[in-house]
Amino acid sequence: MTKIEMDDMIAAIATPFGEGGIAVIRVSGPGVLKTVEPFFVSHEESKLSDAAANTIHWGKFIETSGLPIDQVLVSIFRAPRSYTGQDVVEISCHGGLAVTKKILGLLLGSGIRHAEPGEFTRRAFLAGKLDLTQAEAVLDLIHAKSDRSLEIAIRQLSGSLSKTLQEVKDELLRLLAHMEASLDFPEEDLEVDVKTGMQRQFGSVRAKIHSLLSGFERNQLIREGILVTLVGKPNVGKSSLFNALLERDRALVSDLPHTTRDPLEEALEIKGFYVRLRDTAGLISTPEHPLDKMGMDRTLEALRESHVVLCVVDGSVPFEEADRHVFNHIPKDKKILALINKSDLPLRVNLTELESLMGDRPRIGLSAKTREGFKELETKIAGFLEMKMVETGEQITKLRHKKALERASEALRRAEQSFREKLSLEFVTPDLHEALESMRELTGEVYSEDLLDVIFSEFCIGK
Amino acid sequence: MTKIEMDDMIAAIATPFGEGGIAVIRVSGPGVLKTVEPFFVSHEESKLSDAAANTIHWGKFIETSGLPIDQVLVSIFRAPRSYTGQDVVEISCHGGLAVTKKILGLLLGSGIRHAEPGEFTRRAFLAGKLDLTQAEAVLDLIHAKSDRSLEIAIRQLSGSLSKTLQEVKDELLRLLAHMEASLDFPEEDLEVDVKTGMQRQFGSVRAKIHSLLSGFERNQLIREGILVTLVGKPNVGKSSLFNALLERDRALVSDLPHTTRDPLEEALEIKGFYVRLRDTAGLISTPEHPLDKMGMDRTLEALRESHVVLCVVDGSVPFEEADRHVFNHIPKDKKILALINKSDLPLRVNLTELESLMGDRPRIGLSAKTREGFKELETKIAGFLEMKMVETGEQITKLRHKKALERASEALRRAEQSFREKLSLEFVTPDLHEALESMRELTGEVYSEDLLDVIFSEFCIGK
Repeated sequence: MTKIEMDDMIAAIATPFGEGGIAVIRVSGPGVLKTVEPFFVSHEESKLSDAAANTIHWGKFIETSGLPIDQVLVSIFRAPRSYTGQDVVEISCHGGLAVTKKILGLLLGSGIRHAEPGEFTRRAFLAGKLDLTQAEAVLDLIHAKSDRSLEIAIRQLSGSLSKTLQEVKDELLRLLAHMEASLDFPEEDLEVDVKTGMQRQFGSVRAKIHSLLSGFERNQLIREGILVTLVGKPNVGKSSLFNALLERDRALVSDLPHTTRDPLEEALEIKGFYVRLRDTAGLISTPEHPLDKMGMDRTLEALRESHVVLCVVDGSVPFEEADRHVFNHIPKDKKILALINKSDLPLRVNLTELESLMGDRPRIGLSAKTREGFKELETKIAGFLEMKMVETGEQITKLRHKKALERASEALRRAEQSFREKLSLEFVTPDLHEALESMRELTGEVYSEDLLDVIFSEFCIGK
Repeated sequence: MTKIEMDDMIAAIATPFGEGGIAVIRVSGPGVLKTVEPFFVSHEESKLSDAAANTIHWGKFIETSGLPIDQVLVSIFRAPRSYTGQDVVEISCHGGLAVTKKILGLLLGSGIRHAEPGEFTRRAFLAGKLDLTQAEAVLDLIHAKSDRSLEIAIRQLSGSLSKTLQEVKDELLRLLAHMEASLDFPEEDLEVDVKTGMQRQFGSVRAKIHSLLSGFERNQLIREGILVTLVGKPNVGKSSLFNALLERDRALVSDLPHTTRDPLEEALEIKGFYVRLRDTAGLISTPEHPLDKMGMDRTLEALRESHVVLCVVDGSVPFEEADRHVFNHIPKDKKILALINKSDLPLRVNLTELESLMGDRPRIGLSAKTREGFKELETKIAGFLEMKMVETGEQITKLRHKKALERASEALRRAEQSFREKLSLEFVTPDLHEALESMRELTGEVYSEDLLDVIFSEFCIGK
């Protein structure tokens, strides 16, 4: 898809693929009401093309031969007050595969084109209904796996990130206007307070961009999930803990399909966070079987990727060299939590020894059997995450955002440096223009078709 | 679920499970507008509970704290002009798992109950919006796998089966009224033309019931799919044909014999029919490996279940005892079609020999490589089916329908026999009442909660 048209009619099934109560087929473009009209016999005997905006009509969807296909509800939206800004018809039919295919097929046979992925949202963007970061938020919202990621996506979609970005652009514009107005004066003639004012403006816009950039990694964790890995010597009950943790949240887990990336990884939600919990092969000091060796390599890899490591110790037996061995393999920059498992049995592990190894890292006594300590564990995990997540205003969510902001930041740095070195303002403004241009690319005021292709190709068809 | 309430509010996600552009959450019951209202901030600043019927409202779905969850469209339907006959609110949100779960969760936390499977349609039935066969057609429509099954389901949903059933009931009622009016007269006093008239009525209603019953098996094939099985000695190219018919590489094709051990089944649509195509392990006379033996047992089972058998012969080699062996294993009551494969190579099979075995059963020369003969094959398969499918008016679709009609038919037979034997009409009418009762159960004029439970438990939640 390169240059795509805006003035033709497009249609697609907008609901998820599969059988369900309802499916919705969305049609957008000039003339859709007239085009859909012959396929619809309203129970009210009124014409679709006469229908008022934002009204719903009940009737039969029929073939040209008059053969009914389904009983449907047809929703009418009129330009410009629609999702795409064009006339839009949404056909809500029964959610069967044959029936939706049939209805879509009839529409596609009458001058309507099948929509490309994300094309409805692309039209909304081109019609100025939302900026590019908002369009991207639509995708984040659909893919959101937890309350936190949902929250960020809806805030971005509602335009609060756009507002912050607009503020940055406004400040850059003001600074530029200021400078361009002063261009006629030689640098040394600039009044001190004018210079100070400009210096303050530089500082303000720099701080805003910096704050946006610092939120990026945090956001990535929220969107893509926090890796929590269970590790320990063999037979300390890692897998029982793994299962018990999942069991506790079975409903939540089953609501998150296709999130598992590895046979040993399961998704769950802990206090609103999307967590990817990993079980690992036991870490042993002298693997003999090649399969054990492979398992250990994978465990070490999982440890390196993790954000939080749960180091499991069997509390019912004395501390062993093997436990020390496990601990030594955990990268020390990770958040580490010691789990003293089997708390339903008498405690025989030497806590002092453990402490000498773990330092003041938190530890929890718990039992996969009795579920003792599970609440505390979840609170602790969420605590780690909340520490990382402390909010600092608006947040960017995409690598694209980060790169555009970094370009803007770098151009701004150069401009500020030239300004400080008291170079003529002519040498300062090009960098400021570049910073502004980067910001405009970020929000999509400036865009290439290629960029739109990349962004919208990630969308599902029908959005 | 036993006795379920009608006067409370229910909600469920009505669209298929998964990620997509749109998801729809349906809410029904008295008071839903007032209940959903606090969660919705309309962009038009109007109140949901004041909204006109059949209108759509754009706004934000919010938590009680005011935190936005999504931008949504809310559709308002008012009793009795809604699917369930009650006030209905449909919330069309972004089709993400977290966002739909969140919105549903908020509704369920405010006095709305999660709907049971099929409960919306159950309410529609209880409100008299559709009869029981129409409610069942909703499910058929959603599960329809081909244009034919879709056609039957929509006809049934539109009420044309209901109309025929009503005619049967009307005729039974008329016959009963006739008889009860004549009860005062001794049998021998009935005028000849009155008796002839009754006899004619018996015949008419009997014919109608019989015609409905005869459509049942046909319909089952249309709905559940026609089993077409590929069979042949090893290495005649069954799997290549299977793949070529599916137009993708589902079966593992290799030059080695016995590659296929499990009957593979794939669905496809041939000229509007839903076909379940099966590939099988080659039938050999002396299986040596136990796995081959198992494969053969499965092949024989697949053959027994099939409606159509495609017997594949390699046309590029002479006819063998092994081919004869295969043919002998095909149950002779099946529709059998000989496929002379590899028509791209010189023909070396002896057609006379084949004929002596196959008789006048149709045969087609075809090639999985060049796709020669494929059109003919599809026409032939559809031809078999169309023979079976010749339409004779309205069609019942469920075992429940069949059983009710059989009960009605049997009661009618007894009534007619008593009438013929000139028994007093008092002995005739109880059987007629029973026939009528069966018909009423069929359409749901008479029903038990248990029956509704069985019927609606097959539905998806949200329908």
